[in-house]
Amino acid sequence: MQKTADVGYSIAVLSWDQETYMPEKGAEFRAQQISTLSGVFHKMITDDTLGKWLEELSKDNSLNEKQKKNVELTKETYDKQKKFTTEFVELMSKTVSECFQAWQSAKEKNDFSIYQPKLEKLVELKKQECEILGYKDHPYDAQLNEYEKGATAKDLEKLFVDVRKELVPFVQKIKQAKQVEDSFFYKTYDKDKQWSFGLDLLKQMGYDFDAGRQDRSSHPFTTSFNPLDVRVTTRVSENDISEMIWSCIHEGGHGLYEQGLPAEEYGLPLSEAISLGIHESQSRLWENNVGRSLAYWKKNFPIVQFYFPDQLKDVKAEDFYKAMNKVEPSLIRTSADELTYHFHVMIRFEIEKALFEGTIKVADLPAYWNAKYKEYLGVDVPSDTKGVLQDIHWSHGSFGYFPTYSIGSFYAAQFFDKAKKENPSLTTEIEKGEMKNLLKWLREKVHIHGRFYTASELCEKITGEKLNFAYFMNYAKEKYGEIYEL
Amino acid sequence: MQKTADVGYSIAVLSWDQETYMPEKGAEFRAQQISTLSGVFHKMITDDTLGKWLEELSKDNSLNEKQKKNVELTKETYDKQKKFTTEFVELMSKTVSECFQAWQSAKEKNDFSIYQPKLEKLVELKKQECEILGYKDHPYDAQLNEYEKGATAKDLEKLFVDVRKELVPFVQKIKQAKQVEDSFFYKTYDKDKQWSFGLDLLKQMGYDFDAGRQDRSSHPFTTSFNPLDVRVTTRVSENDISEMIWSCIHEGGHGLYEQGLPAEEYGLPLSEAISLGIHESQSRLWENNVGRSLAYWKKNFPIVQFYFPDQLKDVKAEDFYKAMNKVEPSLIRTSADELTYHFHVMIRFEIEKALFEGTIKVADLPAYWNAKYKEYLGVDVPSDTKGVLQDIHWSHGSFGYFPTYSIGSFYAAQFFDKAKKENPSLTTEIEKGEMKNLLKWLREKVHIHGRFYTASELCEKITGEKLNFAYFMNYAKEKYGEIYEL
Repeated sequence: MQKTADVGYSIAVLSWDQETYMPEKGAEFRAQQISTLSGVFHKMITDDTLGKWLEELSKDNSLNEKQKKNVELTKETYDKQKKFTTEFVELMSKTVSECFQAWQSAKEKNDFSIYQPKLEKLVELKKQECEILGYKDHPYDAQLNEYEKGATAKDLEKLFVDVRKELVPFVQKIKQAKQVEDSFFYKTYDKDKQWSFGLDLLKQMGYDFDAGRQDRSSHPFTTSFNPLDVRVTTRVSENDISEMIWSCIHEGGHGLYEQGLPAEEYGLPLSEAISLGIHESQSRLWENNVGRSLAYWKKNFPIVQFYFPDQLKDVKAEDFYKAMNKVEPSLIRTSADELTYHFHVMIRFEIEKALFEGTIKVADLPAYWNAKYKEYLGVDVPSDTKGVLQDIHWSHGSFGYFPTYSIGSFYAAQFFDKAKKENPSLTTEIEKGEMKNLLKWLREKVHIHGRFYTASELCEKITGEKLNFAYFMNYAKEKYGEIYEL
Repeated sequence: MQKTADVGYSIAVLSWDQETYMPEKGAEFRAQQISTLSGVFHKMITDDTLGKWLEELSKDNSLNEKQKKNVELTKETYDKQKKFTTEFVELMSKTVSECFQAWQSAKEKNDFSIYQPKLEKLVELKKQECEILGYKDHPYDAQLNEYEKGATAKDLEKLFVDVRKELVPFVQKIKQAKQVEDSFFYKTYDKDKQWSFGLDLLKQMGYDFDAGRQDRSSHPFTTSFNPLDVRVTTRVSENDISEMIWSCIHEGGHGLYEQGLPAEEYGLPLSEAISLGIHESQSRLWENNVGRSLAYWKKNFPIVQFYFPDQLKDVKAEDFYKAMNKVEPSLIRTSADELTYHFHVMIRFEIEKALFEGTIKVADLPAYWNAKYKEYLGVDVPSDTKGVLQDIHWSHGSFGYFPTYSIGSFYAAQFFDKAKKENPSLTTEIEKGEMKNLLKWLREKVHIHGRFYTASELCEKITGEKLNFAYFMNYAKEKYGEIYEL
């Protein structure tokens, strides 16, 4: 399994380089190199000898609990990978590649029709994938399960009913309140100074720079080559300092999770993150619950002001904090505030579910998209480029993972509530920039376990109950009630 | 073969990252990842099906010349790799790894005895390797052949007789002449400005930054992930501007070769460099014949002076040029001038040859080393750290490749002489910073052929004769005769 992991992580290195440093002309051969390694990986993970060993180990009663879990989860992966023929894997890879090319061109030209036939093919193939993977109630469950084990359309449906019921009217109320000023974010901020400030924030969080680094990329991301080499990337915009701050803290949260996974389990499931939802809980907890709190800016506003005395001379910590939390329905998911963000996800969820049950077709996507954005966010979509074509993910064949963004935020609120209850000084510590206890708590409660617990089990173990949207809603009401004087 | 190349180049990506960006703690797992990919590579290149195909193709008369050469050279590699058992490959890898650790510690503590037993093991194994690989006259030939196909101890012996006979007394004469002033190199030079200047030089050479990039590393190197993604690295020292300039132009020369290899032959021998000697001929030609010429500094001195007006205000282009060519026997090979450099190589050659024929033992190395340095360079070696322990290469098991450094310089002189004869305006062009014709010439004469010709064949094809040391010696006499007024 370590050898298989070696190949898997090598793919991660090649992909990281592709997004950070690779020169333009290197793209074509790089895609081929990644595809070859993926083939090698698939061959290793579906090796018959491995299957035989796993079969034997499954019956071995001398294993301890951790070993049993490693065997069980590896067998799960093995059995799943075995379901796919090489032909299917290659066809999927080829279709994704074509769909991605078409999406790029369609977005550039604001012409959905370029994308449509390729996306239709891909969705067809993804539907076949659902049948191969298997599901109980809804084909979409097979997709969801890939990112959030055990998640079902039915449970998410229920969750989003709450979101709709509670968050939609709350955002309506905010819209009618006195608005927050954030124009100072959009002055000119020297990129190198922003970079230094970002590193300060990561260091403060406890990110280990001897076991990781930060680089620039056009889309911020986190990747791990092993728990002792975790890379985060960020994006720096000269005319919007908030962009760097969010991506930096957000990816830092992901990075801390990866650095906290047990290196001694390298190659085995217990060295891996539980699910995308739990991963996102770590990034969102740092980004929103910590990074968008007043306590955080009491500590860090003087620092950012030190870097940018002219730009921020008439600004106070509290103004900065409020600006960081400005709520405003918008077109683009990635730049949405922490409340309306979930409407974007909700729309994706509804569309994906409908696509997989066949109640809508790929051809219906633009009209459906625009109607939903009007309904939930009250915005008119001016072009498909700023609408249904905005994100890369569908062209990559990633259906069913958008919901993990919302799930992650809700887990984050629930975990953070517990962390505060267990450590009443937490807010005071954050005000001083002391993150050690919080990180220690996350390490012990979440990181160190790898995939020993499912997301749901972990949540119960930590908080005593299953995922409960009320924590997020209470957090939102308290914070935004104060900011918007509701 | 493309798939095999994909794995090989993936190893190159991992190694590049290891030397440039990898955080400290990532080292252990990275070594494991590279080792696993090496295993995958070895398995692919020794696959029986490949062997069968190569056998069939060898008899296929419908192939054209290039295809035949690709089959012939691939079969050569296949047959060679087949000679090694997995056990031998793994034992070698383990021994190298231990020897490298021991060397690091020995160098740090200036204690050869830490290194000795490990190096003894490695040399023993390398001798076995010679027997496995096979040779005609001398076991050392098997090692030489790995880096410079067809090179033999006998031929090199002859070559170095000339070097000794001509270069030793010439350097003696220089030692007695009026010395050159280079103290201005060692002022304080801002690293970022040096970096910009280095990029200017690379661009001027014609290095394609859409198909490559330059990064920092502690030891400058060039690596290729395919002809459209070639990476060079350099080292920048604040107190020695010459270091950056040399490594930049030198690696740039290697990089241009790699960028000039035919991408359409990717994965096949015709997309690969001929030998280390020819590779070095490209880096040395740019570094020495171009970069250490007066014409070059007529163009580039005003540029470096623009970057560093204070440091260079009393310096003239000609002073800079002379300083660039200061000859001074020294202890450390990597910082040697272009003449005494070959004494370092000669010493290595003599030692390696003696080691492989068994006339000296590993235990004799320090004393033997120090005596040779006294004899050829007239310097007293103050410590093994600055003597026999200075270089990493033996600990990596790299015996037989030092000579390629000298061979490369001599090829460079011979090629450059021809280039000047074929284009009498070459010097004038260099004075203007116009490198296009030179690069075009190198592309057509050397790069584009990949491994179609052997080094020796190529040399004859380009210059009408075999490698001839006289070209280097004439070049040296003319240039240094003028500089030192001999």
